Amino acid sequence: MRKISVLFAALFAAVFCFAQNVEIKEDFVPSSKNQPGQQYPMVNSQGYARFRVNAPQAQEIRVSLGLGADGRAGTQLVKGEDGVWTGTTSVPLDEGFHYYRLTVDGGSFNDPGAKNYYGSTRWESGIEVPAKDASIYEERNVPHGFVQQILFWSESTNTLRRAFVYTPPTYYSDRPDVRYPVLYLQHGWGEDETAWMNQGHANLIMDNLIAEGKIKPFIIVCTYGMTNEGFRPGGGARPGGAGARPGGAGAAGAQGAQAQAPAPRPIGGVEAFQTVLCDELIPYVDSHFRTLANKDNRAMAGLSMGGMETHTITLARPELFSYYGLLSGGQYNPSQIQDKGQVKKIFMSCGSKENPDGINNATKAMKDAGFDVMGYVSEGTAHEFQTWRRSLYHMAQFFWGN
Amino acid sequence: MRKISVLFAALFAAVFCFAQNVEIKEDFVPSSKNQPGQQYPMVNSQGYARFRVNAPQAQEIRVSLGLGADGRAGTQLVKGEDGVWTGTTSVPLDEGFHYYRLTVDGGSFNDPGAKNYYGSTRWESGIEVPAKDASIYEERNVPHGFVQQILFWSESTNTLRRAFVYTPPTYYSDRPDVRYPVLYLQHGWGEDETAWMNQGHANLIMDNLIAEGKIKPFIIVCTYGMTNEGFRPGGGARPGGAGARPGGAGAAGAQGAQAQAPAPRPIGGVEAFQTVLCDELIPYVDSHFRTLANKDNRAMAGLSMGGMETHTITLARPELFSYYGLLSGGQYNPSQIQDKGQVKKIFMSCGSKENPDGINNATKAMKDAGFDVMGYVSEGTAHEFQTWRRSLYHMAQFFWGN
Repeated sequence: MRKISVLFAALFAAVFCFAQNVEIKEDFVPSSKNQPGQQYPMVNSQGYARFRVNAPQAQEIRVSLGLGADGRAGTQLVKGEDGVWTGTTSVPLDEGFHYYRLTVDGGSFNDPGAKNYYGSTRWESGIEVPAKDASIYEERNVPHGFVQQILFWSESTNTLRRAFVYTPPTYYSDRPDVRYPVLYLQHGWGEDETAWMNQGHANLIMDNLIAEGKIKPFIIVCTYGMTNEGFRPGGGARPGGAGARPGGAGAAGAQGAQAQAPAPRPIGGVEAFQTVLCDELIPYVDSHFRTLANKDNRAMAGLSMGGMETHTITLARPELFSYYGLLSGGQYNPSQIQDKGQVKKIFMSCGSKENPDGINNATKAMKDAGFDVMGYVSEGTAHEFQTWRRSLYHMAQFFWGN
Repeated sequence: MRKISVLFAALFAAVFCFAQNVEIKEDFVPSSKNQPGQQYPMVNSQGYARFRVNAPQAQEIRVSLGLGADGRAGTQLVKGEDGVWTGTTSVPLDEGFHYYRLTVDGGSFNDPGAKNYYGSTRWESGIEVPAKDASIYEERNVPHGFVQQILFWSESTNTLRRAFVYTPPTYYSDRPDVRYPVLYLQHGWGEDETAWMNQGHANLIMDNLIAEGKIKPFIIVCTYGMTNEGFRPGGGARPGGAGARPGGAGAAGAQGAQAQAPAPRPIGGVEAFQTVLCDELIPYVDSHFRTLANKDNRAMAGLSMGGMETHTITLARPELFSYYGLLSGGQYNPSQIQDKGQVKKIFMSCGSKENPDGINNATKAMKDAGFDVMGYVSEGTAHEFQTWRRSLYHMAQFFWGN
């Protein structure tokens, strides 16, 4: 239903463009997510994306982004006399990050020009449409925190599991007795523990917020939360994902290096993930990092499916978390939390192209019930990472701002 | 020249196989470097690799590994009635890790089934042929060190640069006054700072050596050492690389996520890299980690081009390093080091399919001249990562063994 509505919206936009005879500005530059030295894909100041793929003997190449003149989702590339295929989306893309892939002669491949990002249980090509507020995650000459890969043994799953731990710049210069609050931050369906740092730029958002004195430094921990259900194509909780993320769902194949760790192993259901997170990872992090190891200084948040997990786990284990965050991942309602004392702050958000009424109504209901809640709607974005980058930027200041 | 000789060797092996009518055992299993849930590519107990790619309308698909019956390098896949292309190498591959790519209708793409690893200035598909000594980097339930991504500002290049820092498992449990030796470990031509941890499994090799009590714990730092020269296709010092690494050289395109850091920016020449390493990274590491910040406890080593850089920099900056390591990256000779006191230990290695005589002769000459030297030749491997994984395993024990 959402997919349909989004396609209609895109189709309308396309028709509107043609009707208006919008001129595509020739100010294309390489996407910031390209491989070293690669010129294509490119993006322009209006959000149009242009692709270039060399495959002289190919019969058909289609890009999963944009909307074809034939009304089909995606952009058909055209072969030039030099055997190189090129094409430009017929509609502008939302600002921010997009996953995509190529269909070459019926096979699914990634764009040789783009870097890959883990989404939809595969490493997909990524492209970045410069956002007006890109400064929140720009690379500046400021103190930078570390992103640690940690490998922890999970008794409940009998696997070696991986997490990434962001420590703020002051972590290694502070006195050894200085301890920090911790945010456990989950990815969405089909993504993994690399998503928030790779395509989310969570560490850069934190480095910049801290450099500007907008937040108290805290630690972020990201681990793998996919469940068996989630691994079934189309399965797992992912509200609005398929439609709002062009070409994002149910892709075959997967690419991209996973660093020196096991490939992500699905966990059997949210209860099983709850055990890994609450009874194995949290104790490991509290024993290996200088954390404020108590409920009053611990937050859990997640995007999409990770929000669903956050909703379930924060209500099931109220003794562990005092700050809850749902990013395009549902809402809390007052009847779900009997003891108001169990939670300090609740953050709920989504993109304006998702379900802003749901967020706004839930926020009002929770505030009316006496909870300390912030609702946030990302203007002009859908179920994609620009919504979640902005959400982290605001949630961090709401939870532990100065 | 090497390429030719290697091709002839492979051709001979192929002919020999056919002559002997070697039976390919049907005990194929998915490569350990596959994407989550992907069955192909597969490898068998003899080292043969089998590929499977879905592209119904494709005209030709070739894999850069193995040797075709037509004598051309690579393996031609054959399309089945289901539109799926399959093929098995006609010769066994050396044990260990190999980079490769697909040529689909004249275009260069990665295998959707495999993870990508940064080599030849692009993210390439990777496949793993199980090695007899794979236990040195197996994932065990032992204490695991952290791999930290650090971002440091480089004044000399005016760029934000990245390094990965391995800290041993005891780093965060030891008393705050416990400090560690440091090995600065460089990648080869076309690779980057991810190589030693991703395809080299350096952190797992260290975790296992430490768990077995074979070495004193130390820190490893890997940063990006490519120079402008190196970025020119076919340029850069890379002895024997093109031939010994099937399909490894000069590929177009690049894939794979680079984590939350700038894409690698070439440095202008070895002198410029020497400045970044010696005058910017080493002071940053010594001020952010509990290092033994002196010459007596600092090592530099590198593979291939990284060995060349190590050779140049250790001789140019004798006040910084006491341990030198060249892995498939040339040799030292006595005339190059006037003051024997400047170096404690020298490690030199290569694969038995590279230039073992060069290593053995240089080792003898250096020992005769009174240097403390270890020469190592990796049996049955070429200019590939299995040679360098084994080299690190032995070098670590030679430098800081128990």
